Amino acid sequence: MTSKPRAPSTDASASPKSRAMKSHGKIAVSASLKPRELMTDTPRYAGVWTAKVITLFPGAFPGVLGESLTGRALNEGLWALEPIDLRPFGEGKHRNVDDTPAGGGAGMVLRADVLGNAIDTAQSGVSSDRAKWPILYMSPRGKPLDQAMAHRFAACDGLTILCGRFEGVDERVLEEYEVEEVSLGDFVLTGGEIAAQAVLDATVRLLPGVLGNEASTEEESFSAGLLEHPQYTRPAEWRGRTIPEVLTSGHHGKIAAWRREASEQLTRERRPDLWESLRRKRDKDGAE
Amino acid sequence: MTSKPRAPSTDASASPKSRAMKSHGKIAVSASLKPRELMTDTPRYAGVWTAKVITLFPGAFPGVLGESLTGRALNEGLWALEPIDLRPFGEGKHRNVDDTPAGGGAGMVLRADVLGNAIDTAQSGVSSDRAKWPILYMSPRGKPLDQAMAHRFAACDGLTILCGRFEGVDERVLEEYEVEEVSLGDFVLTGGEIAAQAVLDATVRLLPGVLGNEASTEEESFSAGLLEHPQYTRPAEWRGRTIPEVLTSGHHGKIAAWRREASEQLTRERRPDLWESLRRKRDKDGAE
Repeated sequence: MTSKPRAPSTDASASPKSRAMKSHGKIAVSASLKPRELMTDTPRYAGVWTAKVITLFPGAFPGVLGESLTGRALNEGLWALEPIDLRPFGEGKHRNVDDTPAGGGAGMVLRADVLGNAIDTAQSGVSSDRAKWPILYMSPRGKPLDQAMAHRFAACDGLTILCGRFEGVDERVLEEYEVEEVSLGDFVLTGGEIAAQAVLDATVRLLPGVLGNEASTEEESFSAGLLEHPQYTRPAEWRGRTIPEVLTSGHHGKIAAWRREASEQLTRERRPDLWESLRRKRDKDGAE
Repeated sequence: MTSKPRAPSTDASASPKSRAMKSHGKIAVSASLKPRELMTDTPRYAGVWTAKVITLFPGAFPGVLGESLTGRALNEGLWALEPIDLRPFGEGKHRNVDDTPAGGGAGMVLRADVLGNAIDTAQSGVSSDRAKWPILYMSPRGKPLDQAMAHRFAACDGLTILCGRFEGVDERVLEEYEVEEVSLGDFVLTGGEIAAQAVLDATVRLLPGVLGNEASTEEESFSAGLLEHPQYTRPAEWRGRTIPEVLTSGHHGKIAAWRREASEQLTRERRPDLWESLRRKRDKDGAE
């Protein structure tokens, strides 16, 4: 940290958007230059899976994560969310967090020194073992998020997520902190906040007790490497379209077989890449 | 539509989360059973690219999209956002929107009749040509979102996005409306809202005037089929780490060559799939 005076931290829990966090004011903290005080003022539930999100838009959290299952779990203390406002770590009167790219070019790059101080604050009091507490940077250059990654994150003590803006972040901060770059896919977003929310949603729903029905995570897409079969519900007929007869037959074996075949057909048609890797895995398992 | 009486529509603009929409109350509309009145009460800017989002959590919009560049563009009327609350379209006293899956299994399925009425409301007054106004359903079964898809959506008049919850939606509604299934990747979310925001962020930033600096979209990841090269900015030295010398040389040719080589190396190492498809494209272009 530094001894330079800084702006007082902004309290994310005061934002009208932080509705889901209000009942648990103590789980909402924000940037501070005094890690000790921060830990004292805002005790976290010991052992609760915690997400720390470094962002220029702390008011955007919890956002959708404050709704539905993830929101209920947040309110029940099954996980904790700490948005950390990057702005107070900025330099000078205007708290600048970015500067022009070395070598020229369009856009602005988030400064290593500014991000470093924010990351130091986020990491105070948490494991420095990246296997237990990864630091992520959401970027299209990263490894694409998948269900196995979400399971790995859910098995950690927590995550720190760095949300980029502009042209990106100074590469040195990624090296210094062994930051794991994670991508949502081959497209470009204006910032990392939505991507961070996607990582958190995919991860938090795998934490114990978050989903009401444990069976739900077993049957869904990717658990078997296949896309999910079509679903139907009442009414039995709608605009001349009926539910496939087998599904209303009550014959569990036939229903399971129909669903398996539908899943396989969908996967073959839509995602030959998934189908191919599943086929290879089956061949390998069969050979052993 | 139906003649059955229904609960009055809830006004999304009254939510404390809809901050960015407040200055343009007329761009925030919600579910109504009277398309004519809806069009009269809430005129949209003619020709403005419009996103209609059918969701059980209209208060989660605009969310992050209300911040930064996309938020400024929303306030300036460069695009419009209409969250449509699915709840008032539900059946019975409790406005149920879902039911148990035909054939059994965990979870609940969104009903075709309920979704159909919501979609009819969303589509009133917009082109029925899906090439001009696609209807999307965010689902891990869909085609993975990529930058080319975002460009295609940006060239449309607008989008309607259906956000799922629970185990999914009744398959018949996807067939009836020729819904395009779009995936964020091979992971499972609790609902489609975050995925919808990702699609909108990726798309809206490509609309004319949304990004301040047009050059920004040219240089970034995927425009050339490559991952973006590392970026650096001040300070010149940070924690013993310096900026690569070539970037501070002032030699534009060498800087461009270094960046190209760095992009190619990153792409080869991290995304052999992208590298391979780029190589094939080059071979093809060379052969012509």
